[in-house]
Formats: sequence, C-alpha cells, structure tokens
Amino acid sequence: MTIPAAQAAAAAVPATQLATAELHASLEDPALESMNFLNEVASLYPAAISFASGRPYEEFFDVALIHSYLDAFCAHLSRDLGYSSGQVNRALFQYGRTKGIIHELVARNLALDEGISADPQAIVVTVGCQEAMFIVLRALRAGTADVLLSTSPMYVGLTGAARLADMPVWPVHTGQDGIDLAHLVSQVRRARAAGLRPRACYVMPDFANPAGVSMSVPARRELLRVAAQEGVLLLEDNPYGLFHDGEHPPTLLALDDRHQVIYLGSFAKTGLPGARVGYVVAGQPVTSADGTLTLFADHLSKIKSMLTVNTSPVAQAVVGGKLLLHGCRLTAANVRETAAYLRNLRLVLDGLADRFPDAGRSGISWNTPHGGFFVVVTLPFDASDALLEHSAREHGVLWTPMSHFYSDGGGLRQVRLACSQLTPSQISGGLDRFAGFVREALAGGDG
Amino acid sequence: MTIPAAQAAAAAVPATQLATAELHASLEDPALESMNFLNEVASLYPAAISFASGRPYEEFFDVALIHSYLDAFCAHLSRDLGYSSGQVNRALFQYGRTKGIIHELVARNLALDEGISADPQAIVVTVGCQEAMFIVLRALRAGTADVLLSTSPMYVGLTGAARLADMPVWPVHTGQDGIDLAHLVSQVRRARAAGLRPRACYVMPDFANPAGVSMSVPARRELLRVAAQEGVLLLEDNPYGLFHDGEHPPTLLALDDRHQVIYLGSFAKTGLPGARVGYVVAGQPVTSADGTLTLFADHLSKIKSMLTVNTSPVAQAVVGGKLLLHGCRLTAANVRETAAYLRNLRLVLDGLADRFPDAGRSGISWNTPHGGFFVVVTLPFDASDALLEHSAREHGVLWTPMSHFYSDGGGLRQVRLACSQLTPSQISGGLDRFAGFVREALAGGDG
Repeated sequence: MTIPAAQAAAAAVPATQLATAELHASLEDPALESMNFLNEVASLYPAAISFASGRPYEEFFDVALIHSYLDAFCAHLSRDLGYSSGQVNRALFQYGRTKGIIHELVARNLALDEGISADPQAIVVTVGCQEAMFIVLRALRAGTADVLLSTSPMYVGLTGAARLADMPVWPVHTGQDGIDLAHLVSQVRRARAAGLRPRACYVMPDFANPAGVSMSVPARRELLRVAAQEGVLLLEDNPYGLFHDGEHPPTLLALDDRHQVIYLGSFAKTGLPGARVGYVVAGQPVTSADGTLTLFADHLSKIKSMLTVNTSPVAQAVVGGKLLLHGCRLTAANVRETAAYLRNLRLVLDGLADRFPDAGRSGISWNTPHGGFFVVVTLPFDASDALLEHSAREHGVLWTPMSHFYSDGGGLRQVRLACSQLTPSQISGGLDRFAGFVREALAGGDG
Repeated sequence: MTIPAAQAAAAAVPATQLATAELHASLEDPALESMNFLNEVASLYPAAISFASGRPYEEFFDVALIHSYLDAFCAHLSRDLGYSSGQVNRALFQYGRTKGIIHELVARNLALDEGISADPQAIVVTVGCQEAMFIVLRALRAGTADVLLSTSPMYVGLTGAARLADMPVWPVHTGQDGIDLAHLVSQVRRARAAGLRPRACYVMPDFANPAGVSMSVPARRELLRVAAQEGVLLLEDNPYGLFHDGEHPPTLLALDDRHQVIYLGSFAKTGLPGARVGYVVAGQPVTSADGTLTLFADHLSKIKSMLTVNTSPVAQAVVGGKLLLHGCRLTAANVRETAAYLRNLRLVLDGLADRFPDAGRSGISWNTPHGGFFVVVTLPFDASDALLEHSAREHGVLWTPMSHFYSDGGGLRQVRLACSQLTPSQISGGLDRFAGFVREALAGGDG
C-alpha cells in the first residue's frame, strides 16, 4: 500500500476543504446548536448530577437478557411459525422484509396494551421512532408549500427530522390540557391563507417531552374532531404512555375512526434502547393516479427502502423476544421499570415540595404529571444558558432550560427536570444541589 | 376502548384519503418502479431459479454465531477496555455514541485488510451503507444547484438515496477500465456551465454492481488526479472488494493523499446482512464561518442524530464480535465465503462457455470479473421486461435487465447475472434454463 508515501506527499498538495456554508442548512439549525450546547455542558461537568438526560433507567439492564430474547424469538419462529432451522438462520442473518419481521407481534401488543386494532400490514418497523418521524415527513413534504404543525414546546427529535426533510414547523401553543385547539385552528388557517399546505400536526398526548403535560379523554376527542374539520393528519408520538400511575387513557389512534392518526411507536423506553427499534402505524388509504388503493404504510416502506433498506432483523429479534417472553404485553414487561419511574417522579415532586415549602410565595411552581419522565419547574428568574453553566460548575447539577424547546422565545423562566435515569440517592442529592442553586439565584436577584 | 363503536361508525364518516400526487416525488421515481417490477416478477415465480438476487450466500448462516459474537464483544469491553459489568450492560442497552461504538475496530480492520490508516474519529457507523449514502448526500445537497455524478449503469441504492435528498444524479459512462474519465470531465464542465455545482462522483472501483467491472491501479490514480483537477469529491463504495481471486488492488481511499475520498463501507456482505451495520470514513476538514476546523464526519454525525439517533449498539456488538473473533481481519473471517463466491463465479463463467460454445458467432458475450457477485451477459436481442416475465414463466429462471440501471436508455441488450446466493446445483440448473430461454429467443428472432 502507498499510505506512507501518500502521507509524506500530503503536506505539499492542497487538501480538499469543505465549508459549512456549502453544507445542508440543517447543520446550522438553532435546535441542533442547542443540543450541542447542552451536550457540551454535560460533558464538561461529568460529576454533576443530571436532571437533563431523559434516558431510560439502567438498573435492570443485563446482557444475559439479550441472549434470552434472541432465543425466545427463534423458538417462536420454529415452534409457532414452523420455520426450519435454515429459515430461522436466514430470518436473522439475511436482508429482510422492508416493513419488518415483528409486525404481527407489534400489532398484538397494540391490541393488548392499547386496545388498538391495527392491521399488521399498516405497520412499518423502523430504526427507532426517529426514522419513523423522518420517513413520514419525507413522504408528506411533496413541495415547498407543505408545512408541519407541532405542539410547542417542541420535541427536538421532531425538529431535527423536519429539518432533514426541509419541512417548516409551525408551533401550536400547549395549555394545561395539552394542545391549544383555538391556536391550532388559527395556525392552520394562517398557513392556508399564506398559500401553504399544513399536512399534519405532531402531538404527544401522554406525558409530553418536554412539557410533561397529558391530554384528558375529552380533549383527545375534541382534537380528533378539530383535526378532521381542518383536514390535517395527526402524528401521535407515544414513548411514555405506559409509565402512568393509574387509569390508562386511550391513545388518539384508539379513538380514531377515520384514519386521521399516524401513530409513532417507540421501544426505546419500553423495550431496549440499544436495539433502536420503533415503528409507525399508517393505515391511511392512498390513491394513485391510476386509481389503485394502497396503504400509506406501503409508501413509507418505499422511502425506508431508500434510507436504511430494512431494520436490523437481529435488533428486531431482540425486541420481538422481549415481547414474546411477556405475552406481548409491554405493561407486563415493564412492571419493575414502571415502578422505578413512578417512584422517581414521586421523589422529585415530594423533594421539590420539601425544599421549596413556600414555593408559591417565592414565585416557584411546578407541574405534577401522573407519569412519564419529566417535570417542568417555573422559576422567578430567567433560567438562561449562562445560569445552567453556573449551576453545573458551582452547584454540580444539570437541568434543561425550557427555552431550548421553543422556536418563538417562550419558556425563559422554566426548566425541565428529567428523573428517569437517576437513582433515589442521586435524586435526593441532586435536588439539594438544585435548591442551593435556586436559593443563590434568588438571593442574587434580591441583592 | 372504543374501537368496536368507532369501527361501526367508520362507514358513515368520510375517511382521510391521501393521493400519491401529494406525496414526495421519490415515491414515483422510475428507479423505484423498476425495483418494484423486479420484486413482483420474483414473487410471482417463487420456484424460478434467481440470478436476479445479489444477496449474500446463506450456507454458513448460524444463529449460534450471533451469540458468540455478542459474547466476544462483551469480553472485549471488559477485558481490553476495562469496563465494569454495569458499563458493559449499559454499552449494549442504552442509547450510544452517535458516531458508533465499534469505530476503533473498524479502523483496525481498514488498516489490516486495506492498508488504510483512518482516524477512528473520521468514522461514522451507520445503519448499513444505505444510511451512509443518504447522510453524505443530505449534507452535500445544500441548495438546488448541488448535483451528484455517478458511474452509469448506476447502483439502485445510490439512486434512491439521491432521490430522498432531492439531489439530481448525472450519469458518467463506464468503460472496460471503470469510469470513463473523459466523460467525467465533460459532465462536470457541462454541469458547471449550466450553473450547477457538481459536489461528488460516486464510484464502485471493485466488482461494481451492476456492471461487474473493476478499475486497474493506474486508472484509480488517474481518477484521483482528474477529480482533484476538477474539484469534485469521490464517493467510493466498496461492498465486494474482499471477494477477489488474487491481488487486492488498493482502494481509492488508500491512494488518496488530499482528503478527496469519502469511503462508504458495508458489513452486509463481509459481516452479517441482518445486523444492518455499515460506515462512512469522512476525514475532510470543514471550516465554519468562525474559522473552526472540524471533520466532515462530525457533520455527518449531526445529520445521523436527526435521522436514526445512533446505530443499534446490539447490532454493532454483533459485527464487532465477528471482527474480534478474526483478529479484525474480514479477509480471515470470510475464507469460506470468499471461496464460495469465487467457486460460484467460476461455475457461471465456465457454465456460460459450456452452454454457448459459439458465443462470438451468435452475438453472445459476457465479461469475466475476477471476483464479486455479478456477471453481465450481452445478448443479440433486447432483454426486455416482457422477455424477463416470459423467462420466469416459461423457463423458470430470473435475471435482471441491465436497462433498469440506466437513466439514459442504455443496457438494452444486457442482463446481469448475480451468482452470490445460489448453490452449485442451482447455478447448473439455472444456466440450463437460461440457455434454453436464449435459444428460444434466438430462434424466435430468426423466425
């Protein structure tokens, strides 16, 4: 090989040089810059206790489980589906069906856990929910008039997927009961008046990231009615719905009687983050120029074939095995995890009450979600990036300024506390530090 | 849940209806239509012997290997990198580094098998090579002036990725020695004259899919020189280079002394198709507006974070384990596979010679690659889609019309025979059928 000679010569030859100005605009997007800033602060202060990360709880991670899941899936293929050993080997090793190989198991799970009767042919298994978001937006962004609506504060994964599809996102306010329907209607009409085509509205009705807000059942029905009236699809994202403390409200998809809802599913929190397996349910009928009727899922599958070919059958087998070992009920598979998340949430809420007994008087408040990963605290001062750095450096505690989730300047006095990944002692110590930080900031504000 | 009631009501309510005309144009792309047609013919005649599929050979697939690979990777984390068992569990289960967790192993493999000294930080591990192609094109398609060049006949995966990035592809002719450099120069200049910005040229220098053509070492050096002179990057795709019958020519990246080459790596053929793991090496320096220097890989990583977050650590562990069990040499890991591919190629070439002894006189010819998965046969009649269907129905043999790989009307009398997935007896029987089909077509043409 000629490497040494080439390297010696390299100094003499002007090397190829690229410039960010010549690269796709998504690379200089404010949302991406936000994430980079937050990651950078986290990496600069590794000893800080982090309420910034919404990653899954780690206590129950065990590599031995991956082997069991694989075995369970292979046993299912041979025992339940009658595969020969050659067919089992092929199912895991070879390129696979673009729409996935665990669609029947996903459909069974949706029926058991969510009361959703989904056609397995309407399911596309994806590389995490992130790929599902991108392929849906890529399909819907047919031209420059196509725009997306989304509840604001906005999930950063959605913002990123939309940037890659060159699709503008119009924010819709969030109230106590989730999406603000009057604002949704006004945004749809404003967009249409501007010659644009609002294709869909993204919502996370259960324990939204980052707002922590959930929608009541009447609010869900009203959203479906308004979306139908205004002619926009709903993209329902549901990564946290399972982790609730009581009654499980129906998803929008379960309430949908006219194919209004495209459902984005994730196994990152309920299955195994390291498998990177998610899915989309898209049963919308699509008419071709020649009158042929197909499912929207079939079009998403075509886009997926050009993007990642198919989701790793090995990764699907791991998730499929986990489903099979728990009778396809993720509720059953997550008994320990759900208890840990609810315990953590309770510790954060009680811990805040303990540390801020005169919260109302001092202008501090927080919401009280009944599940999920996030609590939003409102402070009587701007929770700026500079204060976050100060908090990390001087108090050893990380949180997320809510302003990063607004494209229109909101959330200045709010912080998101994620409690999913921490242990009880980390939560207790972290809240002590957070309270110290807030007291100092208040004193500074007074002085 | 309200599903039964909702379903009952559904008939009364007009359902959401989408139309392909309102979806992204990639969904009505001729290349995609081609693939659908070919897949449809294959599924209509499942008993036909298929020279159409370029999938990997299946004899050595064994699920037990997946368990061994996982174990080997976990042992590496604890033994070589000093991970605690908690850290090992986290490495496989949790979200991971966006650029991947097997980059050091990939770099070691490139050094050992290809004599490439790649900076591990310049490597982004992707969901197969297909995602690598898309993120590179998404980054390079900054505006409507940006176009891509590619050798023609064109790899369909590239065509698909380019469509998703809305990036036009200008074809460049292929000759006996690979890419036609005079045509490359003329296409670059024509594009510039039209106000366009040709960003890169895609090439597969080793056993190209679909042409089966390889480039000599002098031709590779000349391509690097011409690309530097014209100021276009080279996207080098190398899925088949390992499967050769003798001397292993250096890749373009190994010969590159000025960061001209973005290298697209695949483990689909050399590792495990079912893991869906590939990678891109992109060491190009990128300057930001503020003068900061970064690697192009870091920008690709940002795009990946918005597309799939990270490649499944479980899938990476499977591929990493396979590398580790063979001293990071894929040559060593693929001794049996390489022998099988070369045997198959020899059987096809010898089998064609046996069955068409007067080939030259009858206007039949084929190329003689020294490796890879594909042979291209030229026939004295148009190998049309209608004839493919006839061949499948009446003769029980499938092949691929080369015309599907041209955007400009080439390849009408050529067919691609893939020999990678077949057993020796299938090749023999399949060639008997193919010869029967050709004889009939020739007789028909005479009659």
